[in-house]
Amino acid sequence: MLKRPSFRPFPLDRVYELIEPGPVVLLVTARGGNPNIMALSWHMMLEFEPPLVACICSSANYSFEALRKTGECVIAIPARKLAPKVVKVGNTSGRDLDKFAAFGLSTTPATQVAVPLVQECFANLECRLFDKHMVERYNMSILEVVAAWVDPRQKTPKTIHHRGYGTFAVDGPLIKLSSRKP
Amino acid sequence: MLKRPSFRPFPLDRVYELIEPGPVVLLVTARGGNPNIMALSWHMMLEFEPPLVACICSSANYSFEALRKTGECVIAIPARKLAPKVVKVGNTSGRDLDKFAAFGLSTTPATQVAVPLVQECFANLECRLFDKHMVERYNMSILEVVAAWVDPRQKTPKTIHHRGYGTFAVDGPLIKLSSRKP
Repeated sequence: MLKRPSFRPFPLDRVYELIEPGPVVLLVTARGGNPNIMALSWHMMLEFEPPLVACICSSANYSFEALRKTGECVIAIPARKLAPKVVKVGNTSGRDLDKFAAFGLSTTPATQVAVPLVQECFANLECRLFDKHMVERYNMSILEVVAAWVDPRQKTPKTIHHRGYGTFAVDGPLIKLSSRKP
Repeated sequence: MLKRPSFRPFPLDRVYELIEPGPVVLLVTARGGNPNIMALSWHMMLEFEPPLVACICSSANYSFEALRKTGECVIAIPARKLAPKVVKVGNTSGRDLDKFAAFGLSTTPATQVAVPLVQECFANLECRLFDKHMVERYNMSILEVVAAWVDPRQKTPKTIHHRGYGTFAVDGPLIKLSSRKP
């Protein structure tokens, strides 16, 4: 039996701390109750609060239609230990297989969207499609984060940053300098 | 006398390797021959080639008008040792001071744009404003990278990833997994 993580709510005005450093993320969508998942690194913050995140999900991706049709998704952020699964997720298509089953990833219900969270990820952001007028030109979806969760058992998760073809920089040491800027 | 770095051209189809991992970058603009510089982390790749980069430069930033009027900028990528200067750049405005002089940063001419490169940065991307129709709604500028340079003397630069208020994750170890994805 799977252990259900007791995710803790994360303040929406601090979501930028998760997205801004540029981690590889997993984008979860669902269609007809079937969740699917893809990997992406082309994302950025657009606004602090309500938190808006832009991401590039191409029309070539199987997730694209689910995101457009349902207007909902979850951005799940994996830590270093999930890197091998992230690569598998990134190199396969939901057209061909159930990636959750194939790669041993588990879902747990979200609260605001009909798309599940990923249990193994240290952060999960429930998102609604906020603006799709850049979808056609750039495959760019602008998402509003409507709820955010972190797994308190993953205390100092190290994210991974994609450099192409399976090479990732893992978070190293934190440095703290004096700054007024959020 | 300043040593002029012998920057090496970097292939445009690999620019994504620099931007995608989410480093803090410096955005250089110029107005009337006077260069200015700001720090930003809200950027993402939009297209591999020609490389398109979206970034958020707010109308509250002094750099905003220079970027809009000239349609040119340089994205300079600092490594860890520049972190204290990056924070100073981020906490001041070009309205009030010449940040290059104040913080000991040096310029060297670019080739395609009338905005200088930053000598101390390990990578410099010469950019032209490609699409400004998202500027009004989201302060989003879409830039085309028209030339890219790296400093071969900085062999394994560690970039920094902003987590808010002067906390940065420095690049740690690289991991290499088997993947077909650029």
